[in-house]
Amino acid sequence: MKTLHVDLGERSYPIYIGRGLLAQDLIRSHIKNKQVLIVTNETIAPLYLKKTQAMLAGFEHQTVILPDGEQYKNLETLNLIFDALLTHKMDRSVTLVALGGGVIGDMAGFAAASYQRGVNFIQIPTTLLSQVDSSVGGKTGVNHALGKNMIGAFHQPLCVIADTETLNTLEDKQLAAGIAEVIKYGLLGDKPFFEWLESNIEKLTNRDADALAYAIERSCRDKAEIVAADEKESGKRALLNLGHTFGHAIETASGYGQWLHGEAVAVGMLMAADLSLRSGFLSKDDMDKIVSLTKRAKLPTAPPKEMTQAQFIDLMLRDKKALNGVIRLVLLQSIGEAIISDNYDRTALNKTLESFLSVKE
Amino acid sequence: MKTLHVDLGERSYPIYIGRGLLAQDLIRSHIKNKQVLIVTNETIAPLYLKKTQAMLAGFEHQTVILPDGEQYKNLETLNLIFDALLTHKMDRSVTLVALGGGVIGDMAGFAAASYQRGVNFIQIPTTLLSQVDSSVGGKTGVNHALGKNMIGAFHQPLCVIADTETLNTLEDKQLAAGIAEVIKYGLLGDKPFFEWLESNIEKLTNRDADALAYAIERSCRDKAEIVAADEKESGKRALLNLGHTFGHAIETASGYGQWLHGEAVAVGMLMAADLSLRSGFLSKDDMDKIVSLTKRAKLPTAPPKEMTQAQFIDLMLRDKKALNGVIRLVLLQSIGEAIISDNYDRTALNKTLESFLSVKE
Repeated sequence: MKTLHVDLGERSYPIYIGRGLLAQDLIRSHIKNKQVLIVTNETIAPLYLKKTQAMLAGFEHQTVILPDGEQYKNLETLNLIFDALLTHKMDRSVTLVALGGGVIGDMAGFAAASYQRGVNFIQIPTTLLSQVDSSVGGKTGVNHALGKNMIGAFHQPLCVIADTETLNTLEDKQLAAGIAEVIKYGLLGDKPFFEWLESNIEKLTNRDADALAYAIERSCRDKAEIVAADEKESGKRALLNLGHTFGHAIETASGYGQWLHGEAVAVGMLMAADLSLRSGFLSKDDMDKIVSLTKRAKLPTAPPKEMTQAQFIDLMLRDKKALNGVIRLVLLQSIGEAIISDNYDRTALNKTLESFLSVKE
Repeated sequence: MKTLHVDLGERSYPIYIGRGLLAQDLIRSHIKNKQVLIVTNETIAPLYLKKTQAMLAGFEHQTVILPDGEQYKNLETLNLIFDALLTHKMDRSVTLVALGGGVIGDMAGFAAASYQRGVNFIQIPTTLLSQVDSSVGGKTGVNHALGKNMIGAFHQPLCVIADTETLNTLEDKQLAAGIAEVIKYGLLGDKPFFEWLESNIEKLTNRDADALAYAIERSCRDKAEIVAADEKESGKRALLNLGHTFGHAIETASGYGQWLHGEAVAVGMLMAADLSLRSGFLSKDDMDKIVSLTKRAKLPTAPPKEMTQAQFIDLMLRDKKALNGVIRLVLLQSIGEAIISDNYDRTALNKTLESFLSVKE
C-alpha cells in the first residue's frame, strides 16, 4: 500500500492506494462518531457494498443506492441522499462514505458539504477516473441541464481509499475514460510521465496491476501537488481543466450519460492541442505524439458529428473559467507545459472546431 | 444612517441601517464586476424592484422573481435561480442581490454559495425579521420536507443594506414575527435591551421609525458580536437558536408557510422558558415578564393544537443541535442569560409539551 498526503493545513488528508484495501481496517480510524451513511449506486452495490459494510461493523451504518450514470448527477438525485439522511435521523456527526465512481463521489461530497451546512465524508473511488482525479481535491457538485458541475462546493474528504482491485470489474470503456485523465497529468505538467505512458500504455489497457498502481499513484501525486498549491483554483489549479472546456461542451450537448466524462476530455485535449498548434504554441511533432497515444488508449478522437460550431461556442461561454464573455482555455506550449490563456487566435479556434466537426469517424 | 461591522477577518462586511437607503449609492462600491442577478419574489418586486434596478444602473443586471413564502424555500425553487444564472450566461464574477425577506436571503445566499462553487452576494432585507436576523451572519440554505434549513452553507455577504422604510409595507403579522427575534436578543444575552423593550414594545408594534431603527441596530450589534466570536457555530453562536428547536418543529409539522418563522420562534421561546422554569433554572418572575412581553407584541403563545408530544420529540430529534439521539436545547437561567444544555429534566420536557399542547387559544 502507498500513502500520499494532500497538504491543505487543517484540511489535509491521506490517499491510500493498493490492492485489497476494502478488506482492511483503514476507514475505522477516520470516523469519529457512530453514524455513517454509505452512498453508492445500483451497479456498484452488488459488487462492493457488502465488503464496505463489513469494514463498518460496529458503526450505525445505513445505505442509499442511487441510479447509475452522469444523467442522474443533478439536484433531484442529490435530494435522495438528503431523504436518506433525514429518514435515518442522521445528525451533524454523521460521516458520508462515497462508494463508486466520480458521479457518486461528487454527489456524496456535495451532500456532505451542504447537509446541516457541512458534515464529514470519505471517498472510496471504484473507477480509474475517480481514483486518479475526482476523488482528490475536494471539488464536489452536480450538473445543471445548462452546464456541467455548475452547482457545488469545495469540500475535502477525511481520506481517500483507492482499492485497485475494484478496477477488475470495470468495463473497457470506463477504463479508457480513466486513462484519458492519466494522460492529462503527463500533458499538463509531467513530461517524464507522458514518456512512461508512451512505453506502457498497452499495460494499462490490458489492466496490468502494477502499471495501474503506478499510474494511479503518480497521477494522484501530480494532482495533490497542484491542489495543495491552489486549493480554490485562483491560479495553477485551472490547468487541471486541460481538455475540459471542450469536453464539457460535448457532454452537455450530447446529454449527460451519453459520453463518459473521460472520453469527452480525451477529445477535448486533442482539440486544445490542435488549437495550440494552430496558435503557434505547440509543435507538430508533439501534436502527433498526443494523437498517437490517445488512439492507443482506445479513446475517441472526434466530437459527436451532430454538434455545430455555434453550439460549441455557446456552451464554452458557460464554462466556469469564462469571464466577461471571453472563453479562457488551457493550452499546451509543449508536452508537459500548459498555460491558461485567452490570448489565442479567434479564427484558429473556429478552424479547430471546423476541422474536428468535419471528421467522419 | 448607522454602519455596523461584522468582524470576520477577510470575510468582514458592513451592515448599513437607515431610512431611504434604497435611494442611495451604497451598493455600487461593493460590486466589483459587471454582472448582477437580483433575486426577489412576486410580493416584493412590485414594491422595490424598480428602485433596486435604478441603484444598479450601469451594471449588466437581470432579475429572477420567485414565488413568495416559506413553502417555496426548497431545492426546486433554488433551481430557478440557477436557471436564471445560466440562461443569462452569468459567470463566476456575478454578484447576486437578495431583495426580500429571510426566505429570499437564505435562498439567494445558498445559490451564491454553490453557483460555480461560490460567487458574491449582497443582502437587501425588506422585513424586520430579515433585517435583525437572517441577513446577518452568513447562514444560508433551504428546507427539506423532513426538516427546516437542513441543506445549506455558511456564506457571508459583501454587505447588508437595511432600509427601514421598507418596513412601512410590511403586514402586521410579519412585523410581529420580526419583533419575536428582537425579543430573542434581549432574552439570550442583553437584559438592558429586554428592559428597553418592556418600555417600548408598543412603539415597535405601532411602527415608530426611531424605535424600529434603534431595535434593528441593537439586534444587529448583538448578533454581529456573537457571529464574530463563533462564525461556524462551534459554541456560543448556538445560543441564537433560543426557541428555534421547538419553533422548527412547529414549522415543519404545520407545513412550511402556515406559520411565520418568527411566530413559531415566539412560541418556542415560551416553551424553552417554561422548561427552564420547570428545570429550576429560571425564576417565575422572569417567566411572567417573558409571557407578558410576548403577548404585548401580539405574538401567538401556543403551538398548533393538532400537534402531539410524540411529533414534537420526533421533529426535535432531527434538529441540527441534536447529537447521538439527545435533544440539546437553549435554555434560560435568567432574562439575559442563556445556556445550551442537554442536562434538563426529561419529565419536565414532557410536562412542558403537555402543558402547551393543552392550551385552547
